[in-house]
Amino acid sequence: MRRPTPLERAALPAGFSVYGIRCGLSSRPGKKDLALFVSDRPASAGAVFTQNQVKAAPVLLSQAHLRSSKAVRAVLINSGCANACTGGRGLRDAQWSARLAAAGLGVRPRQVLVASTGVIGRYLLRRPLQRGVDAVVRLARQGGAGSVKAALEAIMTTDTRPKAAAARFAWRGRAFTVWGCAKGAGMIHPRMATMLSVLLTDIGLPRPDVQSALAGAAQRTFNRLSVDGDTSTNDTVFLLANGASGIFSAPARALRRRFRAAVQEVCLSLSRQIAADGEGATRTAWIFVQGARTEAAAERMAEVVATSALVKTALHGADPNWGRIMAALGRSGVPFDPGRVDIRIGSVLVCRRGQAVDHSERAAHKALQRPSVPIIIDLRQGSGQAYYLTCDYSKEYISINADYTT
Amino acid sequence: MRRPTPLERAALPAGFSVYGIRCGLSSRPGKKDLALFVSDRPASAGAVFTQNQVKAAPVLLSQAHLRSSKAVRAVLINSGCANACTGGRGLRDAQWSARLAAAGLGVRPRQVLVASTGVIGRYLLRRPLQRGVDAVVRLARQGGAGSVKAALEAIMTTDTRPKAAAARFAWRGRAFTVWGCAKGAGMIHPRMATMLSVLLTDIGLPRPDVQSALAGAAQRTFNRLSVDGDTSTNDTVFLLANGASGIFSAPARALRRRFRAAVQEVCLSLSRQIAADGEGATRTAWIFVQGARTEAAAERMAEVVATSALVKTALHGADPNWGRIMAALGRSGVPFDPGRVDIRIGSVLVCRRGQAVDHSERAAHKALQRPSVPIIIDLRQGSGQAYYLTCDYSKEYISINADYTT
Repeated sequence: MRRPTPLERAALPAGFSVYGIRCGLSSRPGKKDLALFVSDRPASAGAVFTQNQVKAAPVLLSQAHLRSSKAVRAVLINSGCANACTGGRGLRDAQWSARLAAAGLGVRPRQVLVASTGVIGRYLLRRPLQRGVDAVVRLARQGGAGSVKAALEAIMTTDTRPKAAAARFAWRGRAFTVWGCAKGAGMIHPRMATMLSVLLTDIGLPRPDVQSALAGAAQRTFNRLSVDGDTSTNDTVFLLANGASGIFSAPARALRRRFRAAVQEVCLSLSRQIAADGEGATRTAWIFVQGARTEAAAERMAEVVATSALVKTALHGADPNWGRIMAALGRSGVPFDPGRVDIRIGSVLVCRRGQAVDHSERAAHKALQRPSVPIIIDLRQGSGQAYYLTCDYSKEYISINADYTT
Repeated sequence: MRRPTPLERAALPAGFSVYGIRCGLSSRPGKKDLALFVSDRPASAGAVFTQNQVKAAPVLLSQAHLRSSKAVRAVLINSGCANACTGGRGLRDAQWSARLAAAGLGVRPRQVLVASTGVIGRYLLRRPLQRGVDAVVRLARQGGAGSVKAALEAIMTTDTRPKAAAARFAWRGRAFTVWGCAKGAGMIHPRMATMLSVLLTDIGLPRPDVQSALAGAAQRTFNRLSVDGDTSTNDTVFLLANGASGIFSAPARALRRRFRAAVQEVCLSLSRQIAADGEGATRTAWIFVQGARTEAAAERMAEVVATSALVKTALHGADPNWGRIMAALGRSGVPFDPGRVDIRIGSVLVCRRGQAVDHSERAAHKALQRPSVPIIIDLRQGSGQAYYLTCDYSKEYISINADYTT
């Protein structure tokens, strides 16, 4: 485990405390595997869940809790077991863990949100989980801000680095913080990873504002991120707004804008950290598509390029092989004129009007060797644009995902 | 290069001869890179081309020739250069090569079909190609059946093995042959590969019958094959029916059925050979989806499972990780009830009604270690079924595709 970065040590938003302990669900010896995020007062909550039809039990339970409760007091997250494909028993296990945490904290079960990450198809082990929830609740009862470092470790699976980010903004002389943490590197068994993220803020806003800020930010950040193109059964992002630094029941448009910008800044930073820590990743790339007929068309094309195994392996080899990008665009299902396409790798124009350009292969190769590479695709047929964040496929990706360890 | 298999030595259908030589387009020293398939009389032709919007010049030219000519006399294929993303110049180069071959053979340019495979974005080198076409036409003029082995080598790129298959059928005391060859291992640069296939048969049938037999067979074989999920700018399958062993201008239904079955048998064998020779592949898997509401739903779900990087890496590690299969089904966009799904790996039931089954992990692991693994997914909600053929992702796949060699 690396030393905590300044962000991990950064003060949490007012009124929040976070904890992490080891209860024994993770098979990695000594690794913390249970995190608790607590607000000292009821918080408005927004949430974004996986769009996969196969939804893990904690996703179903958190969705139900958000429907039935206006306020949220805590988020309980375990790693080591996804509690997915576990049917009625899995749902009862998730309910039981939320009840346990709620009882310890003196709040209602439906005020507790839950998330899990780990192996699919295994049941939660109640005994270690019970001990763990008891212990983490005891920590919370003792007060203090807890330990960001411990919480970040507890939600990690194949992540090699903890991921956190914060943004601050002011409104009428008051300062507010949006803080967030995330885990996610790919989907792995037996260390099945999923993208989980918890955002905390000390501004108080009506729930629809909290939800729409999170949904908008997630759409432009987490949903435009490809590690391996697979989406999981457990993907979850929560945003808790507790109002400890000020409540605005009818926020001005400019305030909403500032809030949205701060939430998006945190989500974008977390997305970049996830891409950079993609399983086996050695570099990341921004796939920018511009000049499309619509934003949706640009997004679809950026997605196909960003998830192409051939583009991702060329990125690994720093090979300026723009033919693979053209071929990916061509199978995106979006109509376009190949004879108008320009492609730039960094600042090097490698394809003009759909054909090879005399360019310095060495310059393009060098641009691709940077840790973060912009690839700009201009379709020259409209003003729609979008980006997608991706990382390379390395042999390490295969190792991580192929090792038979059950 | 391996010794020729019995299929490579197998007699071609009557009236056909095939040739392969080296002209110098391929960067691999000594490798043959130009093939010519000749019919001694006009043949009805069917063709299936890439659905990629970015179509290489030879694809565009062959489509035009098939529209303007009823009969085909020859197919000219080069490896080493895809002649894709080459604009008007690329099209002129393709036309020039067809004219050159036609002049040598004494047929019309539009009776010559062309295909190319190799690097995208590079122009054909006319000088070596001219020498090559002259030489291969000279061989053809000398007569004889030519060399299947040489032709198979000439169309290969990253293939490690030549691929050929044949099927025979009889009708009213006459025997007919459908013979086919293919190349394809993935899409690679600088050895950019694409799926190319040429089928030859000595039965004579109306062109619509030839076309529909090929289209139907391709849909159930080549189109249900995933090496890396990328489709190329050059994919082409030709079927030439020259009638040298008998012509049926109004074929009976039963004859058409037999013909279709033979064409499909050849295409299926070639597909399996391509999957087994997938870049870096160590094993193949058949993804069978049954119990879907429709065949289209089954096909879509089989495709998503077959192209999942996580499923392909688990296959490499012989890891019976059915959670990845469930997650892939869940993002297919096809509505289904996860609580009804059964999954079998070989004969081992690993998931029943969407949940883990007590099964022998060792048995499932062992089933996955075979060179060809059936994975059966039963959705239990209808009678739609489909299969998809796939191969594993290995570190070798990354090596082949990441090596920077330009």
